[in-house]
Amino acid sequence: MMNRRQFSRSLIGALGVSAVPSGFLPGAFGASAVSPGFLSAALFQAQPLVNGPRLHRWLLELSNFGAREDGGIDRVAFSDADIEGRRYVRSLMEEAGLDVRVDLVGNILGRREGTIPGLPPIMVGSHLDSVPAGGNYDGPLGTLGALEGVRTLQDAGIELRHPVDVVVFVNEEGGKTGSRVMAGEFRAQELELESASGFTIGEGIRRLGGDPERLAEAQVGPGEVAGFLELHVEQGAVLEKSGIQVGVVEGIVGIRRWDAVVHGAANHAGTTPMDQRRDALLGAAQLVEAVNRAATSMEGSQVATVGRIQASPGAPNVIPGEVVLSIEVRALEMRRIQEVMDEIQREADAIGAENGTPIELNEFYLSGAAPTDDRFRGWVESAAADLGLTHRRMPSGAGHDAQAVAHFAPMGMVFVPSVGGLSHHPEEYSRPEDIEAGANVLLGALLKADSELD
Amino acid sequence: MMNRRQFSRSLIGALGVSAVPSGFLPGAFGASAVSPGFLSAALFQAQPLVNGPRLHRWLLELSNFGAREDGGIDRVAFSDADIEGRRYVRSLMEEAGLDVRVDLVGNILGRREGTIPGLPPIMVGSHLDSVPAGGNYDGPLGTLGALEGVRTLQDAGIELRHPVDVVVFVNEEGGKTGSRVMAGEFRAQELELESASGFTIGEGIRRLGGDPERLAEAQVGPGEVAGFLELHVEQGAVLEKSGIQVGVVEGIVGIRRWDAVVHGAANHAGTTPMDQRRDALLGAAQLVEAVNRAATSMEGSQVATVGRIQASPGAPNVIPGEVVLSIEVRALEMRRIQEVMDEIQREADAIGAENGTPIELNEFYLSGAAPTDDRFRGWVESAAADLGLTHRRMPSGAGHDAQAVAHFAPMGMVFVPSVGGLSHHPEEYSRPEDIEAGANVLLGALLKADSELD
Repeated sequence: MMNRRQFSRSLIGALGVSAVPSGFLPGAFGASAVSPGFLSAALFQAQPLVNGPRLHRWLLELSNFGAREDGGIDRVAFSDADIEGRRYVRSLMEEAGLDVRVDLVGNILGRREGTIPGLPPIMVGSHLDSVPAGGNYDGPLGTLGALEGVRTLQDAGIELRHPVDVVVFVNEEGGKTGSRVMAGEFRAQELELESASGFTIGEGIRRLGGDPERLAEAQVGPGEVAGFLELHVEQGAVLEKSGIQVGVVEGIVGIRRWDAVVHGAANHAGTTPMDQRRDALLGAAQLVEAVNRAATSMEGSQVATVGRIQASPGAPNVIPGEVVLSIEVRALEMRRIQEVMDEIQREADAIGAENGTPIELNEFYLSGAAPTDDRFRGWVESAAADLGLTHRRMPSGAGHDAQAVAHFAPMGMVFVPSVGGLSHHPEEYSRPEDIEAGANVLLGALLKADSELD
Repeated sequence: MMNRRQFSRSLIGALGVSAVPSGFLPGAFGASAVSPGFLSAALFQAQPLVNGPRLHRWLLELSNFGAREDGGIDRVAFSDADIEGRRYVRSLMEEAGLDVRVDLVGNILGRREGTIPGLPPIMVGSHLDSVPAGGNYDGPLGTLGALEGVRTLQDAGIELRHPVDVVVFVNEEGGKTGSRVMAGEFRAQELELESASGFTIGEGIRRLGGDPERLAEAQVGPGEVAGFLELHVEQGAVLEKSGIQVGVVEGIVGIRRWDAVVHGAANHAGTTPMDQRRDALLGAAQLVEAVNRAATSMEGSQVATVGRIQASPGAPNVIPGEVVLSIEVRALEMRRIQEVMDEIQREADAIGAENGTPIELNEFYLSGAAPTDDRFRGWVESAAADLGLTHRRMPSGAGHDAQAVAHFAPMGMVFVPSVGGLSHHPEEYSRPEDIEAGANVLLGALLKADSELD
């Protein structure tokens, strides 16, 4: 991490040590068309900076679509509010002169062409839909932050080598429909699922202008997209608590979930002496502690959670005969999840043997980890450093469209602090200065990616 | 404990050491009218023994009323099956020449007069009603065992000093209605409660021939009953596991119940690092273990149970923000319950402080302990010893009519083994030899009580 003064020194140093190769500015970004005016400005400012007030105005205007009285947002995918919000963002894209199209699943892509013919596009964006009673930043920040980056390039007269697609993915909150269709991961039977809007996903896709019967055509093949960048609110409190401005996302964690069934013997709580019990809840309690211990006894950012527990028969005067509880483990590497689970399994076996309450573990959910691309991670990190912003590497504990995109293109993510770690909540909030900083990092990383990607 | 040979030796010894005072047989029982034939038989048999086959026939015949296909019984209080079962037992009482009356709550009392005018009656009995899908021993054994004792006295031509009332209490399983009305503990508003039969308790009392508006008149004043004896199945597995034939009940345990509320912070299970959590379920798990430890770390028969637990919001991917669980503590002495609870409170405070998950304890149920009367305990114990039966003192972890009766008369209880500890279950079973032994102990204790009580 470096502060602004260190950052200025390092930039001046970088510019001072060598001749600038023709058409290429080292350090902050490479650009194929740098105006002389900008080149001199770059001595004090490594990249053009986004227009914060404009970005905030857009965020504010978007928040009208699905606004709740409590300041939160109801803009679930496929709802009228979602359609209106998309129309608004599309108008902003058109105002920016982007070439806007809606693909067969309903994703909106606003293209700005690049200077080198035949290069695949770099995608930048996120989603616009919210959870029911959600907040105003989860999704919109990444979408409008991407658009603001493109507008900033236009304002500065900077053209990129690659085309840039500003993307609005469909139904992130209800199953990452848009990005998973692009990745070829969407299963046809999901079309029948009812979404939070009341429409099935199939009906919803039609409402957005897509065609549920032709989703295969929306799949993106390898090499068709050069890379993807997504700006997002952290949805946790790590950045805020450590007072750091930017999160350089190491990847989106993998998730595995198990049901643990603890088998005991239901018995009368009055007539069964303590030494004759096979109390399933006592075994379960020890397991809850073991789950916590398994995650905390290793170095690393892995987490393990028991969120759900049910004791049967569940009366104050009956010793529980069976307890079912959920175990969730998340980590950046699937191998680490397995290590944590191996430890939990070992402890579960010991608990079962000690108490006469055998424990059975049944996996019911798996979501693969999606590490960010090494180069993208480096570009996000150096963009933050160039801007003199404090930053740290961190996992994304929550899922994002980038996770699906990782299947067909290298990707990177930028996090900004969420106040109080609140998300999926009307009081979700990120400070204006953090938002602006995040949008600048996104733009900086885009410039580096454009310069270095084929 | 002594075996049968030791018992015979001790009886012969007792008879040999001194002259038998006129009209009084030492050792097994005192009787005001002992026939010469019985006196000589008493050299080999300290008390008349019950007619086991007759008792079993009665139990079998009674099991027709409310019989289930699986061998269990549905004879909830106030149901037609209950009324038919009561009619059957009443007919047995009448066949035995007892003077049968139904009191104002519907309890049936079959009296056999005593020889000394003015002595209050000794009550012996239990209930006939079952839980839904119950067994054939819980209640009927105590009722028919009492009647068999009286029939045995008649067959042997033995009269007692006190009147004996063979009692059938109303609605034990649904709230000890009959015995609690006698004790003056019944609250008028309970009349409106719907019983398992579908009738309110008030309606049910009417169905049994009582008058819900005159319950106050059914209350028994101090001194009006000389004492009470109840034979019952253990409903636990202590006797069976220790291979002991008779339980000498030390008392019916007191019960206190609390709800523990563990306050944490609900949070995203993916984005909240382990060291930033206030996981209410982790606190709850430690509390479950503390409850178990509190009961087992002290000498004695106290038990503590967490039977119910609920974690909110209760999703696999959300750290629980609040957990509510029940804590039940039972012991023979209320003071001991308090000691266990003090220890739980201490641990709860420590857990709350350590994890940042404060724990609040709210009491929601209290049922006072009812120790058996010292003398009755002694009589049950010596009756078992006289009969050469293995026996042990033990608490009753479950509630019984005797608990209510203790409010107006000294009482004692006899337990016989429950196979597998099963009760309130169609497969509830006690072996014929254990039942017969229990009825003999009940009769022996009755004889001793009659001899020694005023």
